[in-house]
Amino acid sequence: MKNILLTILLIFIVLPFIQAQDDEDAFKIREIYDQVLTEGKCYGWLEYLTKTVGPRLSGSPGAAASVEYGRQTFNAMGFDTVWLQPCMVPHWERGKPASARIVNSSTLGTKELNVIALGGSGNSGSIGVSGEVIEVKSIDEVKKLGSKVKGKVVFFNRPMDPKQIKTFSAYGGAVDQRVHGPREAAALGAVGSIVRSMTTRIDDVPHSGVTYFKDGIKPIPAVAVSTNDANLLSDLLKTEKIRVNVQTDCKWLEDKLSYNVIGEIKGSSHPNEIILVGGHLDSWDVAEGAHDDGAGVVQSLEVINVFKELGIKPKRTLRCVWFMNEENGQAGAIAYADWSNDLNERHIAAIESDRGGFTPRGFTTEADDAVYKEKLKLAKRWEPLLTPYGLTIGTGGSGADVTRLKPQMGLLFGLNPDSQRYFDYHHARNDVFEAVNRRELELGAAAMSALVYLIDRHGL
Amino acid sequence: MKNILLTILLIFIVLPFIQAQDDEDAFKIREIYDQVLTEGKCYGWLEYLTKTVGPRLSGSPGAAASVEYGRQTFNAMGFDTVWLQPCMVPHWERGKPASARIVNSSTLGTKELNVIALGGSGNSGSIGVSGEVIEVKSIDEVKKLGSKVKGKVVFFNRPMDPKQIKTFSAYGGAVDQRVHGPREAAALGAVGSIVRSMTTRIDDVPHSGVTYFKDGIKPIPAVAVSTNDANLLSDLLKTEKIRVNVQTDCKWLEDKLSYNVIGEIKGSSHPNEIILVGGHLDSWDVAEGAHDDGAGVVQSLEVINVFKELGIKPKRTLRCVWFMNEENGQAGAIAYADWSNDLNERHIAAIESDRGGFTPRGFTTEADDAVYKEKLKLAKRWEPLLTPYGLTIGTGGSGADVTRLKPQMGLLFGLNPDSQRYFDYHHARNDVFEAVNRRELELGAAAMSALVYLIDRHGL
Repeated sequence: MKNILLTILLIFIVLPFIQAQDDEDAFKIREIYDQVLTEGKCYGWLEYLTKTVGPRLSGSPGAAASVEYGRQTFNAMGFDTVWLQPCMVPHWERGKPASARIVNSSTLGTKELNVIALGGSGNSGSIGVSGEVIEVKSIDEVKKLGSKVKGKVVFFNRPMDPKQIKTFSAYGGAVDQRVHGPREAAALGAVGSIVRSMTTRIDDVPHSGVTYFKDGIKPIPAVAVSTNDANLLSDLLKTEKIRVNVQTDCKWLEDKLSYNVIGEIKGSSHPNEIILVGGHLDSWDVAEGAHDDGAGVVQSLEVINVFKELGIKPKRTLRCVWFMNEENGQAGAIAYADWSNDLNERHIAAIESDRGGFTPRGFTTEADDAVYKEKLKLAKRWEPLLTPYGLTIGTGGSGADVTRLKPQMGLLFGLNPDSQRYFDYHHARNDVFEAVNRRELELGAAAMSALVYLIDRHGL
Repeated sequence: MKNILLTILLIFIVLPFIQAQDDEDAFKIREIYDQVLTEGKCYGWLEYLTKTVGPRLSGSPGAAASVEYGRQTFNAMGFDTVWLQPCMVPHWERGKPASARIVNSSTLGTKELNVIALGGSGNSGSIGVSGEVIEVKSIDEVKKLGSKVKGKVVFFNRPMDPKQIKTFSAYGGAVDQRVHGPREAAALGAVGSIVRSMTTRIDDVPHSGVTYFKDGIKPIPAVAVSTNDANLLSDLLKTEKIRVNVQTDCKWLEDKLSYNVIGEIKGSSHPNEIILVGGHLDSWDVAEGAHDDGAGVVQSLEVINVFKELGIKPKRTLRCVWFMNEENGQAGAIAYADWSNDLNERHIAAIESDRGGFTPRGFTTEADDAVYKEKLKLAKRWEPLLTPYGLTIGTGGSGADVTRLKPQMGLLFGLNPDSQRYFDYHHARNDVFEAVNRRELELGAAAMSALVYLIDRHGL
């Protein structure tokens, strides 16, 4: 009898209720996509951020302009609160364009290579540093060479593996050379370093990005070389010893005060449960930072715009954060996490977009081990609602700016777009507004909005 | 006892055998991807086809050049047989660029609109045709207007729906205006027709494409207008009557002899089971036909190259076909299907790539109703092998050139790439080599190669 009652309860009351919830979710997600694809504002914001504000490396006037642009744009958005969160950022300047010149090839004579200074590179002085080139494929190889590296220019030339289907895996498998290679070479007495650009594309465009030195090791001139010229240099080295002259005009200046831009809408019924959307406002100085990460910041603001335009009052607190200094220090991410952790805040979810404005495939996730399995299972319930939009929810990390929120035991997401073109533009002069496709950008914003809607409605 | 024996048989003999087969498939598919992503030739072929051969509309010298380029390239590929299959193609020429000028706006005075003649448009004579503009959203609406259309210029302005996630669905929902609209307007006495470009992008680039007249209806001047100018014209029409002068210099010439380019490798054990890969060689005359369909033809040839480079001897007959005249008549597709059906050939599968060289998501399929369910089920067995490469096998049609092979009861596939950017370039001046990304193109070729490998090995 009890079973019969339960069955009746299930069939006539609970199931229709669940069904109605699902239908409402599906309906609302459709509304969200319609809104973004027909009335979205993110493409226009991106145009302003890239074309009018332009490059915005931490500490630069451009970065200050981007903060002010963020503040003004957030203020016009109807947040409950908008504020600037201070953080001290490193201030490095590129100066005049770097050069690397082969000076003694018996085949080619002298030849300029297509290079760009790495962020954090030392200054070569006006006549540059000169040395014989030693090609290596790994940091281990440099360490094994030991004192043989002294006085030399170390050339890191392990390519990103084009056979990887996910280009971020290929990047992860090669980028240690750029981030740590020049420092390890400098520690052993190298006078300069040349690093193969982090891209699978074979072309003449060099790709910058951060390289870290540390206290006690004086930064040496460190440049990235285009893949075409990396191959040329490697070919030459098979037949003769090559000397290069490397010139960099980089300067390290005093740390500077900068800011994260933050806007908040207080949740109506669960104000202590925070859902964060964000990207990073700073970019490298060599281009407009359109994919990295102009796309991410404007997509995250579109989420707020969608809620406003559709009249959805969030039950939980929505926070949009444009982080400062992701590229070379993560001072903004650290300031935010420290502040939030100190307040014992609880981010039930944080979604970062920092993999380019390409057609979204879904979200990758991470969380503290103690809760990850359970949280991921909860999120994956929503997959059927996202499948019509080509989205899945899987493993694979979140983003550099939100990963520090892990101790708050929420689920951290990274928007996961098609990755095939990202490293064609990453940290290079061609990362400009024109490289971003409007529909792809908007689909990413709609995907984030749909996910935030589901988390806000059902909790996580 | 019998059950125990069967169980033993299953566990110790059949299962390991199936497992080994799966492992070999996975290994071979990995080899195929490695080959294409590191040694693929399709990008180089595409560069030649787009930059050196260039535009290649049926009947044009460019089309003849493309056939000869195909013949030479196929001959260098190690096919058992290469041949040209004749077909008579329509020969239409654009002549001088078309124009459409607003002549009497009280707001704007005279104003040139961004237009392009539709393929098949009539000739306006030197002073053009002039008439009042009537805006409609559908062919039905024109029919209802009836004799009111006489002497007018009919403006078809139903947009592609940007809310559709799959852009081909949006195209399918709007393209009848371009293909049939001008004819229906002409039948009712309209002097000219302007059709909103088939794209979701709002910009100044007009998109051409075929429009069909028929015997007894004289082709009128018919142009596509950019989406920006379609919106402008529509806005003007809300406030005043607008007259336009439309000028086209198009010519219909005698049908011309042209060819499909075909290469064949005979199957070693099932030569009568044919697997076709192909795309169409012709393109519109306004650009390089890089995505439409240079990408498809070079991807299909890459499949053959992969088999050759990896030393895979096909058990079944592989045929690569570069079809002529897909854009305005499908004479090549008809010639091929008629010839093959007459010979009682049996294509167990045919795979067309004609949706642009973007990151592949898998394949769509179709077949005769009598076999579709069974064949699709067979193909879907392979999905687990394709998942690591982001591919699925689903419904949704094949391609205009292979769909006529349906009576042979095989499974017909269309490569299914990400569709978000396709209609930014489709039939427009920006469909050039530079719009194609090397990795995306290669991933499509690898996907096709993997599928052909599976069909060849296991049958279908």
